[in-house]
Amino acid sequence: MAIDLRSDTVTQPSDAMRDAAANAAVGDDVYGEDPTVNDLEAVAADRVGTDDALYVPTGTMGNQIAARVHTDRGQEVVLDREAHIYRWELAGLAQLSEVQPRTIDADGAVPSPDQIRDAHVAESLHRPGTGLVTLENTHNARGGVAVPAESISAAAAAAHDRDVPVHLDGARLFNACVALDTDPARMVRDVDSVVCCLSKGLGAPAGSVLAGDAEFVAAARRVRKLFGGGMRQAGLIAAPGLLALENVDQLAADHDNARRLAAGLDAIDGLRVPKPDTNIVQVNTDDLGGGAERFVDACEAAGVRGGAHGPSLTRFCTHLGVDRDDIEAAVDRVADAVRSL
Amino acid sequence: MAIDLRSDTVTQPSDAMRDAAANAAVGDDVYGEDPTVNDLEAVAADRVGTDDALYVPTGTMGNQIAARVHTDRGQEVVLDREAHIYRWELAGLAQLSEVQPRTIDADGAVPSPDQIRDAHVAESLHRPGTGLVTLENTHNARGGVAVPAESISAAAAAAHDRDVPVHLDGARLFNACVALDTDPARMVRDVDSVVCCLSKGLGAPAGSVLAGDAEFVAAARRVRKLFGGGMRQAGLIAAPGLLALENVDQLAADHDNARRLAAGLDAIDGLRVPKPDTNIVQVNTDDLGGGAERFVDACEAAGVRGGAHGPSLTRFCTHLGVDRDDIEAAVDRVADAVRSL
Amino acid sequence: MAIDLRSDTVTQPSDAMRDAAANAAVGDDVYGEDPTVNDLEAVAADRVGTDDALYVPTGTMGNQIAARVHTDRGQEVVLDREAHIYRWELAGLAQLSEVQPRTIDADGAVPSPDQIRDAHVAESLHRPGTGLVTLENTHNARGGVAVPAESISAAAAAAHDRDVPVHLDGARLFNACVALDTDPARMVRDVDSVVCCLSKGLGAPAGSVLAGDAEFVAAARRVRKLFGGGMRQAGLIAAPGLLALENVDQLAADHDNARRLAAGLDAIDGLRVPKPDTNIVQVNTDDLGGGAERFVDACEAAGVRGGAHGPSLTRFCTHLGVDRDDIEAAVDRVADAVRSL
Amino acid sequence: MAIDLRSDTVTQPSDAMRDAAANAAVGDDVYGEDPTVNDLEAVAADRVGTDDALYVPTGTMGNQIAARVHTDRGQEVVLDREAHIYRWELAGLAQLSEVQPRTIDADGAVPSPDQIRDAHVAESLHRPGTGLVTLENTHNARGGVAVPAESISAAAAAAHDRDVPVHLDGARLFNACVALDTDPARMVRDVDSVVCCLSKGLGAPAGSVLAGDAEFVAAARRVRKLFGGGMRQAGLIAAPGLLALENVDQLAADHDNARRLAAGLDAIDGLRVPKPDTNIVQVNTDDLGGGAERFVDACEAAGVRGGAHGPSLTRFCTHLGVDRDDIEAAVDRVADAVRSL
Repeated sequence: MAIDLRSDTVTQPSDAMRDAAANAAVGDDVYGEDPTVNDLEAVAADRVGTDDALYVPTGTMGNQIAARVHTDRGQEVVLDREAHIYRWELAGLAQLSEVQPRTIDADGAVPSPDQIRDAHVAESLHRPGTGLVTLENTHNARGGVAVPAESISAAAAAAHDRDVPVHLDGARLFNACVALDTDPARMVRDVDSVVCCLSKGLGAPAGSVLAGDAEFVAAARRVRKLFGGGMRQAGLIAAPGLLALENVDQLAADHDNARRLAAGLDAIDGLRVPKPDTNIVQVNTDDLGGGAERFVDACEAAGVRGGAHGPSLTRFCTHLGVDRDDIEAAVDRVADAVRSL
Repeated sequence: MAIDLRSDTVTQPSDAMRDAAANAAVGDDVYGEDPTVNDLEAVAADRVGTDDALYVPTGTMGNQIAARVHTDRGQEVVLDREAHIYRWELAGLAQLSEVQPRTIDADGAVPSPDQIRDAHVAESLHRPGTGLVTLENTHNARGGVAVPAESISAAAAAAHDRDVPVHLDGARLFNACVALDTDPARMVRDVDSVVCCLSKGLGAPAGSVLAGDAEFVAAARRVRKLFGGGMRQAGLIAAPGLLALENVDQLAADHDNARRLAAGLDAIDGLRVPKPDTNIVQVNTDDLGGGAERFVDACEAAGVRGGAHGPSLTRFCTHLGVDRDDIEAAVDRVADAVRSL
Repeated sequence: MAIDLRSDTVTQPSDAMRDAAANAAVGDDVYGEDPTVNDLEAVAADRVGTDDALYVPTGTMGNQIAARVHTDRGQEVVLDREAHIYRWELAGLAQLSEVQPRTIDADGAVPSPDQIRDAHVAESLHRPGTGLVTLENTHNARGGVAVPAESISAAAAAAHDRDVPVHLDGARLFNACVALDTDPARMVRDVDSVVCCLSKGLGAPAGSVLAGDAEFVAAARRVRKLFGGGMRQAGLIAAPGLLALENVDQLAADHDNARRLAAGLDAIDGLRVPKPDTNIVQVNTDDLGGGAERFVDACEAAGVRGGAHGPSLTRFCTHLGVDRDDIEAAVDRVADAVRSL
Repeated sequence: MAIDLRSDTVTQPSDAMRDAAANAAVGDDVYGEDPTVNDLEAVAADRVGTDDALYVPTGTMGNQIAARVHTDRGQEVVLDREAHIYRWELAGLAQLSEVQPRTIDADGAVPSPDQIRDAHVAESLHRPGTGLVTLENTHNARGGVAVPAESISAAAAAAHDRDVPVHLDGARLFNACVALDTDPARMVRDVDSVVCCLSKGLGAPAGSVLAGDAEFVAAARRVRKLFGGGMRQAGLIAAPGLLALENVDQLAADHDNARRLAAGLDAIDGLRVPKPDTNIVQVNTDDLGGGAERFVDACEAAGVRGGAHGPSLTRFCTHLGVDRDDIEAAVDRVADAVRSL
C-alpha cells in the first residue's frame, strides 16, 4: 500500500474524534447557539491569547476573511511572494477584497522589518496605501520553515509603526510552536489576527479558527456569512477540532519523522534534501534531471506519494498517518524509484 | 421548555446521523478522494436528475457559486424582490459576482414568463445584458409557497428563449416536492442548476448540494475553493447529509403540523394566518397592533419562539424537532400571549 | 436635412465656446494647476451652494464616483427603477462599487419619504444596510419630469433620518430649476452631492461637475483618478463649460419648444403625448401598433430623428440646436410619417 | 521664473492646437458621430498599424480598459514591479478588473522571455492562471528607458506561446520610437493592444488612444462607457490630439535637451546622473545625503522644479515647454541649489 506523503491534509480523524462528533452537543451556530462551537472558539482564543475566535470551514476562508476585514478596497497587502495567500488561493485578495499584493522575496520566510518598511506605500492621490501585512508560520512553500516569535514580532512592529495591521497565516502554527518550543500565545502576541488549521497535522477532518480581538471577530463573523461559511449545527464537525487542539505535542513525532526522512533521502545519489524544521521535506532533483513530475511519478510507482511543487522540487509531508516504519520504508522505496530512472 | 419554531435550521441530527458521522469513510475531498462526499454527490445528482453535484457548506455558498458561474460581471440577474438571494445574502450578487439584480414583484412566488420577458435586457453599449434568472422553491419569505413544476418550467422556458440560464434556490426543494407530490427530477428538469439544503427540515447538521451538468459543477468546484468552501475530510459531516436525503417523506408531517398550527392560530382573535403550503406559517398581527417584535416577545415569554419577518409579520416554522403535541401546546401558549398584550 | 431630436447630447458648442477653448488659460489639473478648471469648479460650487466641486468627463463618471465615495461595498442603494444610474450605466453600481440597488417604483419621479422609509434596510448579520439614496432631477426616463425642491428635500430628510446620504443625479438639474423657477442652490440644499452636466441642453461639448462638501470632493478627486478621469490641461474643454453655465436661462426656450412639439404631436391621430415639464417629449404609439422602432424608422425617413425608449415609447428632445421653425417642421414631418404607416 | 521639469504632462497646447480645437468639426461621439474623433482614431490606428483605435480621456483609463478587456477576473497579470500600471494607478487592476499582479524585477525595463515563462502560472483548482502580460515603453520609473522593438517582440512571443495576450503601456511610445528610430507600427507589431498618450511630450492638452484589433476596440468602447469616459462632442479636445501626432519628430529635441541636462548635472559634485535614453533624467543624490525631498526643495528655491521619485532619486523631464537655454539655466540653478545644501 502506498505511503501517502502528499500532504498532512490527508490525515484521518481518530476514533476519539469520531466519537466526539457522534456525541457533540449542537445548536444553530448562525444564532450563536452551538455549545461545541462556542467551546471550541473559547478554547482556541485562550490558546492563542486573543479575545475571541471564529470557527471557519477552511484556512483559506480564514485568511480571506482576515484580508477583507483588515483592508479597504484598493489598498496594498505586503507579503512574501511564496505565501499561500498569494499563490494558492485563486487571487482571492483581488477577487474578494479588491486589494493589490506587493510581494517581497522573504528569504527568511517572513519579511524583515527593513523589507516591510521598504515595501510600505503611503496613500496618495496616485497610490493605494499599504493596508495589511501578512506573514506565514510555518511557511509552507519555503519548506515548512518555523519562524521564531522574535521575527514575527519584529515584522509586526515594523508594520505597526506605520499603522498597518498584521495577519498571520498559521495554518501550521502549532508545528512552528512545537519546533521552536514557543507558547502559541507568545508566537502571535504581536499580530492582529491569526488563522490556525485544526485539520492538517492535528488531525481534525476539517475546520480552522480565526482569532483576534472582539471587534475583529464580530466583523469576521459577518464576512463568513457573506462567503457562505455560516454553517448551522457545526458542532458536529467542530467537536473533533477540540480534540485536535490536544494533539499539538504529537506534532514533535512528525517533525522527527521528517528529519529521518530528509536524512535518508539526502543520502540517495541525485537528491539534495535540506534538514527540515518541521513536517515538510523538500527534495531537490536537479541532479537527477527530468523534472519533479517525473520523479513524483517514479515514487508513486514505487509506493510513495508526494507532490511536485516546482520544476525540480518535490514535497513530502509527514503526519500522524505515518510512523517511523513507514518512513524507513519510504526511504527504501524512493531509493528504488531513483534507481529506476 | 420553549417550543422553538424560529426556523427549521434549528433541527438536531438524529442518532443515526451521528452514527453515520462516526463511521464515515473519509478522504481528502480537495483531491476528490472522500468516498462519502463522492457518494453523497452522486446520490444527490441522481435524485435531482443532473449529471453531477457538489457538496457545499451552506445553501448561501451554493447560491453564490451558481451566480458566479452562470454570469459575467456586470450582467443583470432577474429575481423576485423577496428572494433569499437578494434579501438575506449580504448583497453577495454585487460583492462576489459584481452583477446587478433586477427585481420583480412575483406574486406567485416565481416570476411569470411575461415578467421574465419584460425584465429581460439586451446587452448594449449602455446596458448590462440579463445573465441569469433565479427562482426559489419553496419560497421562504412568501410563506413557504410550493411552486408547481409547471411554473418553474414556464419561467425557465421564458429565460431560455433569450439564452439566459436559470438557477433554482431549492433550499427547501424537497418540501415543495412533497407538498406537490412531484418528483425532484421533474421539478428541476428545466433549470440549469439547483441548490438543495440537507440541513433545515431534512435534519442534517450542515451542508447543501449544488447540482448541474458536468461543466457547471467543474466550474463550481473552483469557485468553492475561492470562497473557502473546500473542506478536507468532509465526509464526516456529509455522512449525515446522505441520511437526510432519506428523510424526505417525513416532511409531510411537518406540513401537516404547519397546517394545524395555522388553523389553531387563525382562530385566535387578532391573528390572521393563511393556510400554509409547507412548513412555514406566517402570522399577520396587524389587528393586534404593536408590531411583530412585540408579538414575538410575548410568544417567547409564553414559551413559543418565532421570528419577526416584517413590521406585522411573524414566522413560525415546523420541523422534525416538534410533534403534534408541541403544536397543540404552541397554539395554547400563543393564545395566552395574545391575551397578555 | 433631418431635425435631430434624439437627445440634447447632440448640441454643438457655440462660437463663443470655441473661442473660450482657444483662449483658455490651462495648466496640469492633476496637480490642481489648471486655472480654468479651478475657476469652473468654483463657479459651479457657488451656483449650487456647495463647498467645492470637481470637473469630470461625464455625468456617468460623476454618478459612479458619488456612489463609490458615499458607500461601503456590500451596502444597498435605494433608487427609482427607472433611474439612469440603474438602467443606463452598465451596472456600474455593482461593478465599480459592489453595492446592491433596491429599486422603487417612484411614480412621482422621486421616491416619497414613505417609500424611502419602507426601502430602508438596517445592517445585520444577514443584510446589507442601506448606504445611499439617489434621486434624479429632471427625471429622464419618466419624461423629463421636473421635481420640486420640496420633494427633493422631503426625500433627503427621510434618508437623513436614518443617517443615509443622498446623491442627486442632476444631469439636467438646470432644466428642472428653470421649469420650476427654483434657485439651484435651493434645489440641492438638502442633498449630499449632485452631478450637473455642462453638455446636453447647456451646450458644452463635454463635461460635468460633481459638487459636495470639501471632504466629499477630496475623496471624489481620488476616485476620479482611479476611474481614469484625471485629465491634464482640461481647461481647454472646461472653458466652454464655464460659458455653458451662462446658458441656463435659454433652457426656457427648449421647454417652450417641447410643449409646442408635444401639443402638435398629440393632435396627430394615433399618438398620445403628455404635456412635458421640460425638454423631453415622450410619444406613446400604442394606438398606432407596430412598436416604437417602426415609428422611429418612419420619422427618420420623414426627416425627424428620435429614439425608441420602450416597446411603444419614443423620445424626442428639444435643445439649442432646434428653433421654433424646426419644431413646426418636425410636427408636419411626423404627421407624414404616421400617414405612411 | 521657475523652469518646470516636474513632468512632460505640464506642456501647454500650441496655438495651432488651440485653433484646431476652436474649429473642430464635432458630433456626439457616444453615437460614433464625432468626425474629429473618428479621424483621430483612424490616424492613430494607422500610425501604430492596428485595425482600430479608441480615444480615451487619459492613459490610465486606456491601461485599465485594456486590462479589463483582456482578462477574466481572478487571473494574474505579469508585469514589471516598477510599471506605472502597478505603482501609480491606485490598484486599478484589483479594483476594476479583480486580477492579481505578479511582479517581476525587469532590469531591462521589459521582462525577458525567461522571466515571462517563469512567471507564467497555469490555471488549476488552486491557482489563477496568467491572463495578461503588460509591458511599458518608454519605461517611466526606470528612467525613460527606450526598449528596442526586438525586446518587445521577444517578450510578446513568450507570452503568446502560452496563449497569454500582451498590452503595451506606450504612454511615451513615440519617445521610444524616436530614440530608437523605429517605426511605431514595428514597435507594437507583436502586442495585442497599446495605449499612447497625446498629452505629455506631444503637447495635446489631454487624451490618449487605445489601439488594437476591431474586436478588442469594440469591447474597449463598452468598458470606456462603464468607467465614465464616453464624452459627447469630444472632437473639440481630440482635435489638438491630431496635431500632437504631427509633433513626434520634435521629441528628438527633448531627448537632446535631456542628455545635455544629464551631462550638466552629472558634473555637479554630489550628483550621479546616468545618460538618459529619452526625456527623463534621474538624479541620484545619495552622495549629497538628506534625501530627495530636500534636494527637490532646494532646486525649487533655486528656480528649477523636479519631483522626488524615491528616497534619493529625483526626476526631471524635458518637454516642448523648455529649450536649450532653459536647460543651461537649469544646470546653473541646480548647481546653486547643491551649493546651498
